[in-house]
Amino acid sequence: MENKLGRNLPDKLMNELHFKPFETTKIGNPVFQRTAPKVQVQNGHDKLKDDLKQVVKKNVKDGMTISFHHHLRNGDYIFNLVMKAIMDLGIKDLTLAPSSLTGVMNDMVIKAIKNGTVTNITTSGMRGSLGDEVSHGILKNPVIFRSHGGRARAIENGDIKIDVAFLGVPNSDRCGNANGMEGPAAFGSLGYALMDAAYANKVVLLTDNVVDYPNTPASIRQTQVDDVVKVDQVGDPNKIGSGATRFTKDPKDLTIARAVNQVIVNSQYFKDGFSFQTGSGGAALAVTRYLRQAMLDNHLHASFGLGGITKPMVDLLEEGLVDKLMDVQDFDKAAADSMKNNKNQQEIDASWYADPDNKGSMVAQLDIAVLSALEIDTDFNVNVLTGSDGVIRGAVGGHQDAATAKMTIICAPLVRGRIPTVVDHINTAVTPGQSIDVLVTEFGIAINPNRPDLIKQFQDVPSLHVYTIEELAKKAESIVGKEEPLQYTDKTVGLVEYRDGTIIDSIRQVKD
Amino acid sequence: MENKLGRNLPDKLMNELHFKPFETTKIGNPVFQRTAPKVQVQNGHDKLKDDLKQVVKKNVKDGMTISFHHHLRNGDYIFNLVMKAIMDLGIKDLTLAPSSLTGVMNDMVIKAIKNGTVTNITTSGMRGSLGDEVSHGILKNPVIFRSHGGRARAIENGDIKIDVAFLGVPNSDRCGNANGMEGPAAFGSLGYALMDAAYANKVVLLTDNVVDYPNTPASIRQTQVDDVVKVDQVGDPNKIGSGATRFTKDPKDLTIARAVNQVIVNSQYFKDGFSFQTGSGGAALAVTRYLRQAMLDNHLHASFGLGGITKPMVDLLEEGLVDKLMDVQDFDKAAADSMKNNKNQQEIDASWYADPDNKGSMVAQLDIAVLSALEIDTDFNVNVLTGSDGVIRGAVGGHQDAATAKMTIICAPLVRGRIPTVVDHINTAVTPGQSIDVLVTEFGIAINPNRPDLIKQFQDVPSLHVYTIEELAKKAESIVGKEEPLQYTDKTVGLVEYRDGTIIDSIRQVKD
Repeated sequence: MENKLGRNLPDKLMNELHFKPFETTKIGNPVFQRTAPKVQVQNGHDKLKDDLKQVVKKNVKDGMTISFHHHLRNGDYIFNLVMKAIMDLGIKDLTLAPSSLTGVMNDMVIKAIKNGTVTNITTSGMRGSLGDEVSHGILKNPVIFRSHGGRARAIENGDIKIDVAFLGVPNSDRCGNANGMEGPAAFGSLGYALMDAAYANKVVLLTDNVVDYPNTPASIRQTQVDDVVKVDQVGDPNKIGSGATRFTKDPKDLTIARAVNQVIVNSQYFKDGFSFQTGSGGAALAVTRYLRQAMLDNHLHASFGLGGITKPMVDLLEEGLVDKLMDVQDFDKAAADSMKNNKNQQEIDASWYADPDNKGSMVAQLDIAVLSALEIDTDFNVNVLTGSDGVIRGAVGGHQDAATAKMTIICAPLVRGRIPTVVDHINTAVTPGQSIDVLVTEFGIAINPNRPDLIKQFQDVPSLHVYTIEELAKKAESIVGKEEPLQYTDKTVGLVEYRDGTIIDSIRQVKD
Repeated sequence: MENKLGRNLPDKLMNELHFKPFETTKIGNPVFQRTAPKVQVQNGHDKLKDDLKQVVKKNVKDGMTISFHHHLRNGDYIFNLVMKAIMDLGIKDLTLAPSSLTGVMNDMVIKAIKNGTVTNITTSGMRGSLGDEVSHGILKNPVIFRSHGGRARAIENGDIKIDVAFLGVPNSDRCGNANGMEGPAAFGSLGYALMDAAYANKVVLLTDNVVDYPNTPASIRQTQVDDVVKVDQVGDPNKIGSGATRFTKDPKDLTIARAVNQVIVNSQYFKDGFSFQTGSGGAALAVTRYLRQAMLDNHLHASFGLGGITKPMVDLLEEGLVDKLMDVQDFDKAAADSMKNNKNQQEIDASWYADPDNKGSMVAQLDIAVLSALEIDTDFNVNVLTGSDGVIRGAVGGHQDAATAKMTIICAPLVRGRIPTVVDHINTAVTPGQSIDVLVTEFGIAINPNRPDLIKQFQDVPSLHVYTIEELAKKAESIVGKEEPLQYTDKTVGLVEYRDGTIIDSIRQVKD
């Protein structure tokens, strides 16, 4: 079958897994019966354990769904510790349902797939060796890729039923009251993990820092926690700000960031009390710095900044240029420290951030989102998941979610080396063009034809070079030539959900 | 049928309502599938309303269960406003499920019962004219009395299914982010209301103070809220500290409070890091002041104070004599103000406070609870619900919940005027004697025979006059004579749940 974007979906799998094809970015007003955990009652006196393997043995059985958070990114020490214990116990056929998978987890996941420990995965993304192996078909069943808001929705509506959540925390008391702000492994917001804590049947905290009872503030509460396991080290928060969240010095990125800033300041949305999310990715992060100067020059301030929080956003908060930071995740240690010290940096869970199926998330209130792309097609559909070789090397993240902003700007270089970004046909559709408003490249910008208001606002701005997206695609082709279509096998290695749970695209096994 | 306390329960009603008789205070480790709300999705853009009647009309239908909180106690203006709108619309056959009912609501509830608007009630308690009318049989179905922890349990496990919660808040933004701390009607902790916000299908906030978006900290979150209604005035927080929470000057109360303090300081639990709940009621509140001096004299401090928070407890926090106040409710304006200003005064919801069926509540960690009583029998069973005339004039409150503390002290005058407190047979059993350890009266103390350790600790303390509880009952009888047994009709006007949902007693209609 084909969905509304014309993406080919595997009929058999779609039927077997009861998925519906993507139709629209509009969510409407459906009614959902929420799900809830199955709770084993205890008085809380005997939660503190030091033998991880015993805790795993007690809680995890063959065929279960287990989860982790990725707040510590490549500084995470918990995932590998728990997965090793699971493999040592010979537990098989697990579904892995972390908020995302980071590079530091790759070797372990590959091993767990190959020995049958893990047979299903749902994640925001994967990179490096794991993406490569999965793209070459090592996992029997397709990975289900979900946005951060989509995962929150799936957990709240019961599409993901987590049996056991293993959550690394930088502090906890003996009963499981924990937050992300204090301790050697402090990483700030527990935003993604809060979903697991609220909805998993069993919640196991792992911490290197057992503090006096009662521990406050308690982002995760004792009422949610079954076991607290003392470990040597939860992680290294200095490694959070690596990979996708590193600050750019690339002059091309900075050119793009300046153009994004021009788009923002010349739009109808740049007015006192506006709101924004600038996300991760080189140029996207740099935008925040330019935005600061524009706000100072124009004597206006923002009501809130949203999303993964970065040092430049914290600077805006401290200068009074933004009233509140709504923080689902901290992209660097400075942002994590700030959450502890600044009461206007509010921790939010992934549902509050972006679940499309609640009574109104933050992204639904967002004016401006600045997002990145691996590829964008001439219908403005965006790929942030697979590379030009068809191999999985990215994450849905909050991309689909933040793209519901009143003005969504994709910033990306026209070409990366010999690889075009703006193309006629993207390898994988992740975010529908319907929700993308402006593409900014180092060469010029393109405005979605469904936004005549923005075309009018930007077409005569001297600093903005406005093209059609077809012109930008041609320009890219003129630089790097036409790409050869990729060769795939018939096997589906991934299904990409839109945030509402419909399938926006499938990913097939690459042919070598 | 009779339950384990020998209380007579109405077979027909018990069977019809699927209730089980009380057996034990032990909760064990049962497994419960939690319930969850049915959510109508919206983007949050159109929540703010100014026509309460329209909002009521949209949300409330005949036969539904509606709820309110009682944090503003006799200063509440919301309950009557909403109930009037409901009656104006001619809606009938509602179940009223507030966290409790206060005097200011009495006239309205009586009217709503008499005209068929309300046909079922579950509450923590009722007093004054409402208690009198209900005790005389105006409500067709029995009131289900639940403790604060029991209500949290019933909501989490689905015994109470709230269709629409009407929650008065001293501030909210246009999307429903709200807390109890700022604004003219600020009352501090939203502890009881947080259950309704999390579990009701529809959540309607009423506020006199619409603040900028996004409002933080958000005790109630936009993801939970359907409508935000602007009203003229939510309530008068100066009226919170009236009735059951007024500070005593009664010399008898102060004598009792001093004796309670002696019990505490001479017990094994009075050591560095101990925890306590002192509750409401004249003598109970005064205990906190004596405890302060004892802590100073003995150079020790408490890890936490729990429950309804009072000014004397805030003083201990500010002096560093207690590390944390765990705050489900503020009993006076000073306590409410303190929650805003002191990060060590932690707002907790009713589940965290006292739900017996979660993974460990605060009361399960409590060392010492000081509670009051209307009557106590020679098996230490306590009545806090009906007067000596059999009329409902009290509330279960947190009584059953806090009584699970390691040492539970009941403080009460031996007699009140011509009415004995210590009796052979109490009118209504609310808290089982199994969980009561010490009775303190102005005449002397009695220790539960199931606590030989405490008998040993207290019997030789010069300041403590230790009696058997039978001796205290005789003493009371010698002062006021023997009470005539009350006359009741066959009609059951109330069923009292133990915190685990079993029925600990029934209340019958009084005969005039």
